[in-house]
Amino acid sequence: MSEQGLTSYPVDAVNRVKRRHDRGHYDHATVHALLDTAALCHVAYVVDGLPYCTPTLYWREGQTLYWHGSSASRMLRNQSEGQAACLTVTHLDSLVLARCGFNHSADYRSVMAFGHARLIEDQTEKERALVMMVDRFFPDRTATLRPSTTQEIKATAVVAMNIEKASAKIRSKGLADDDEDYAFPTYAERIPVRTVIGAPEQCDRLLPGVTRPATLAGFSAGRLLEHALTEAYAMSYRTG
Amino acid sequence: MSEQGLTSYPVDAVNRVKRRHDRGHYDHATVHALLDTAALCHVAYVVDGLPYCTPTLYWREGQTLYWHGSSASRMLRNQSEGQAACLTVTHLDSLVLARCGFNHSADYRSVMAFGHARLIEDQTEKERALVMMVDRFFPDRTATLRPSTTQEIKATAVVAMNIEKASAKIRSKGLADDDEDYAFPTYAERIPVRTVIGAPEQCDRLLPGVTRPATLAGFSAGRLLEHALTEAYAMSYRTG
Repeated sequence: MSEQGLTSYPVDAVNRVKRRHDRGHYDHATVHALLDTAALCHVAYVVDGLPYCTPTLYWREGQTLYWHGSSASRMLRNQSEGQAACLTVTHLDSLVLARCGFNHSADYRSVMAFGHARLIEDQTEKERALVMMVDRFFPDRTATLRPSTTQEIKATAVVAMNIEKASAKIRSKGLADDDEDYAFPTYAERIPVRTVIGAPEQCDRLLPGVTRPATLAGFSAGRLLEHALTEAYAMSYRTG
Repeated sequence: MSEQGLTSYPVDAVNRVKRRHDRGHYDHATVHALLDTAALCHVAYVVDGLPYCTPTLYWREGQTLYWHGSSASRMLRNQSEGQAACLTVTHLDSLVLARCGFNHSADYRSVMAFGHARLIEDQTEKERALVMMVDRFFPDRTATLRPSTTQEIKATAVVAMNIEKASAKIRSKGLADDDEDYAFPTYAERIPVRTVIGAPEQCDRLLPGVTRPATLAGFSAGRLLEHALTEAYAMSYRTG
């Protein structure tokens, strides 16, 4: 178990960062902040003993992760104990070209979160989750939408998972050759990588007078997606 | 099994695209082309019955996937049959803001590849893989590097997995509201997302006369990472 107190996730063999443990973080602040920078995650499940790695959209609320789980819904239904899952979020920040193969690397930030996934079946809980599935990304948007039908609510599967264990792993040191290798006549560089927003494409069938809400201003061409998502998160949970 | 012949992966309950099956593709051309556009994947394994979803760098050669597998190496050692794994690659291409919650979506391209992962232990096979671990991304680069030491080779774990089954899933239709919802006074748009290369950062300790090789020209500021990686792939395997 963790010796880092209540503001960190407990550490054991499941989530301990084994290789390059100096890159590991377990505190809520680091783990949660990273989780709030992204929309896309990959979730691993076990079905009939075999691993599946599924991409999906997700969000965090407190120590609970939510995701759009249609592909997992049959597996999760009637699993009252929940199904073990690992949800991982990764930003690739650079490719690092060093002077030897061994020091070739990448800068990245990732979180692995472990818990038991359950399908949200309670109607009240589900309706609230469906609001946040939109509003976490686009604050206050649900109130502007055509209301969901009963059939649509039924057809959307939302999965919830309390984070039982988690680790963040961050490499940000860029190029780092061995001291003696700087004497070797090899070209070396760091290639930054970033995920950015393109020019938003308005629907060409907007009704007269319908304009882009101010809450979407953060989603502007050229910005980092993670900045827009982090801001949206802060807006969505500003009262929570 | 597949009825699509030898140029497609067989389809069964494991890899059949269940939800939105119209988005599923199983042919080698689609699956392989998507796999060659990226550097980052997520791999799901099962360890002691629990799922793990690990981000790593990977590449493809024919119907085999390779990845940097240090975190998995203890699990894979002495597993002569290999360990079941699912390697997934995803591009998030847009966020779609529709007029109702149900039609909120994202454009994306993903591949899930299934097989059995094995640690490469044969020395010749491993040395070749370590060359391609660099040269697949940066063609002909290994020849310019300080040669690897025996210790470095030993300390690097490379995993190989023959693709037994695979599926690609692609959504690219952008905004698609229900016909009657276009009469609803909601703002709607598609927000494009792309992963781009930043300005390459040369090492400030390059030796005199050492210049950027022409093979890196594709990695230039503002380009899509996937375009640079696809080109590099074509260069690296031009004779294969």
